[in-house]
Amino acid sequence: MATMKDVAREAGVALGSVSRVINHAPGVKQKTIDKVNAAIKKLNYVPDEYARGLKVKSSKTVALILPSIWNLFFAEFAYYVEKYLAEKNYKLLLCNYSNNPKAEQHYIKMAKQNKIDAIICITYDDLDKYFYAGIPLVSIDRYFEQKISYVTSENYEGGRLAAEELLKHGVKHPAFIGTYNHNPSDVMKRHKGFAEYLSEQGYEFADVYLLEPVTKEEEETELFKLLDKNPEVDGIFCNTDSLLLDVKNWLAQREISVPEQIQLIGYDGIKPDFNSELGISTIRQPLPEMAKCAVEMVIEKVEQHRDEQRIERFPVSYIEGNTTKNI
Amino acid sequence: MATMKDVAREAGVALGSVSRVINHAPGVKQKTIDKVNAAIKKLNYVPDEYARGLKVKSSKTVALILPSIWNLFFAEFAYYVEKYLAEKNYKLLLCNYSNNPKAEQHYIKMAKQNKIDAIICITYDDLDKYFYAGIPLVSIDRYFEQKISYVTSENYEGGRLAAEELLKHGVKHPAFIGTYNHNPSDVMKRHKGFAEYLSEQGYEFADVYLLEPVTKEEEETELFKLLDKNPEVDGIFCNTDSLLLDVKNWLAQREISVPEQIQLIGYDGIKPDFNSELGISTIRQPLPEMAKCAVEMVIEKVEQHRDEQRIERFPVSYIEGNTTKNI
Repeated sequence: MATMKDVAREAGVALGSVSRVINHAPGVKQKTIDKVNAAIKKLNYVPDEYARGLKVKSSKTVALILPSIWNLFFAEFAYYVEKYLAEKNYKLLLCNYSNNPKAEQHYIKMAKQNKIDAIICITYDDLDKYFYAGIPLVSIDRYFEQKISYVTSENYEGGRLAAEELLKHGVKHPAFIGTYNHNPSDVMKRHKGFAEYLSEQGYEFADVYLLEPVTKEEEETELFKLLDKNPEVDGIFCNTDSLLLDVKNWLAQREISVPEQIQLIGYDGIKPDFNSELGISTIRQPLPEMAKCAVEMVIEKVEQHRDEQRIERFPVSYIEGNTTKNI
Repeated sequence: MATMKDVAREAGVALGSVSRVINHAPGVKQKTIDKVNAAIKKLNYVPDEYARGLKVKSSKTVALILPSIWNLFFAEFAYYVEKYLAEKNYKLLLCNYSNNPKAEQHYIKMAKQNKIDAIICITYDDLDKYFYAGIPLVSIDRYFEQKISYVTSENYEGGRLAAEELLKHGVKHPAFIGTYNHNPSDVMKRHKGFAEYLSEQGYEFADVYLLEPVTKEEEETELFKLLDKNPEVDGIFCNTDSLLLDVKNWLAQREISVPEQIQLIGYDGIKPDFNSELGISTIRQPLPEMAKCAVEMVIEKVEQHRDEQRIERFPVSYIEGNTTKNI
């Protein structure tokens, strides 16, 4: 296999010039660049990425840290993040946060060793340590006391839209079910938007809003406590689609029919895969656009060393499925 | 930050001894190992993985190549692969095959540069080039002319089980819908097992078995051609759960009720996430065990330089959901 020395000899330039061309150093003459590239092509030379890593301090790798890839929302997001990273010649290291309790330490260490360039993170845990470690970082949904950039959807508008659609579909006694985290997140605005729209329209609503960590069993118990106390409830906004699927199953087990007795609207717009639909009524987040934005933001931080905070909010839309009545 | 030289000075040993200890080279005295480790601990020394990579020729990274992570079966598999790799201190590079038409070339190049150690691959395309490139490789489902190791489920038994369960649930006129690929795969045995069980029981069945690539529209058209020709069909085995979800939606659009008019059994046992159920009737593959096996096989190949072919088949089980009738 050709070495860097072979390339230098073939191009008739010094070894250092070859290195500067490979590492895109500034101030190299176009003539030298052309000669080196011609020699690389002729000798079919492959730069050793490890050796390059030592010099350019970049591995062209971004870690995607999320609670679990085994979740349609995160899987679709990861699909698009990988797509847009690949287009920019970056690789994606996948980390299921819940599998790796020491993931944070691990990735900070890797970043210090220049094994990763940056992190895109979906976590409801404490991220401040990344920020302090100086790793380029983009978060999804979460906001921090520190000025960490993040991408999210119009959660407040999404909550309003869910309320509006339930009323449009004839719901007279709306309810909300969801969970929240003690760390501040844009996601909490879904509840706020839902509540404010209903209040403006003169409606009250029944509410199950639980602080995490919470088990599925607790969610189910709380839902049926609410329905026992408020048997007139005929429409529920679930603050994720994943929760909507659970609620649908729980209601089916008690022979409560959806949408005839209770209508359901979720949030996220998850699909089983690229080509299929789950057929549920939901508030869709534009995941491809959000992933693209997160990738652009993180690469901007890496390559242009930009560290100002950017916040991008994407508009949502209502998708009609079979968990609401035909109107 | 402490350097390797600082460690050597602190431990009172030669620089080469520090390197040998860090890279787990054989033949180093226990006394030397203890001294070096004590110095590393005292100085909080972090070995530079790039520099290590140059010497040990390992990056502790496995590439997972699959058609698309945006698919519940692949997402669950990836979840467990990452989990078991992390336990062995390996990292996972994610590659959505369909996003990266040049992925193969890319990963062969990376393996040559020692940026990845091995590949776990779910692909119905041609993999022989990996094998020729000498990259440790474990495949899922696919088999090859070359002796590539693979992990799969008992597809033949699974096909038989689907037929048996449809009959048990009262189906008199079974049908099959699925796709196959021109590359040989264990998955095709689902069809064979289904056909042979029915034949043994004296049943005929209607059949939509399409060569990929095929669009969703073509699948839908072929299904309804079959149902028009065989209006007595009252049970369908779909050879993936993902296809079952589509079939269920298509039937709903024509107001054919599941399971009352047509019962459906899928294959895979997909779930929306760790804690939830889709509630469909299906043949479940034991994905955690299959992922664990794939990880063990690939690490064995990397660390013990074992290149013999291993084939592991995992037993499947029937999961009762709401796409079959209560019996």
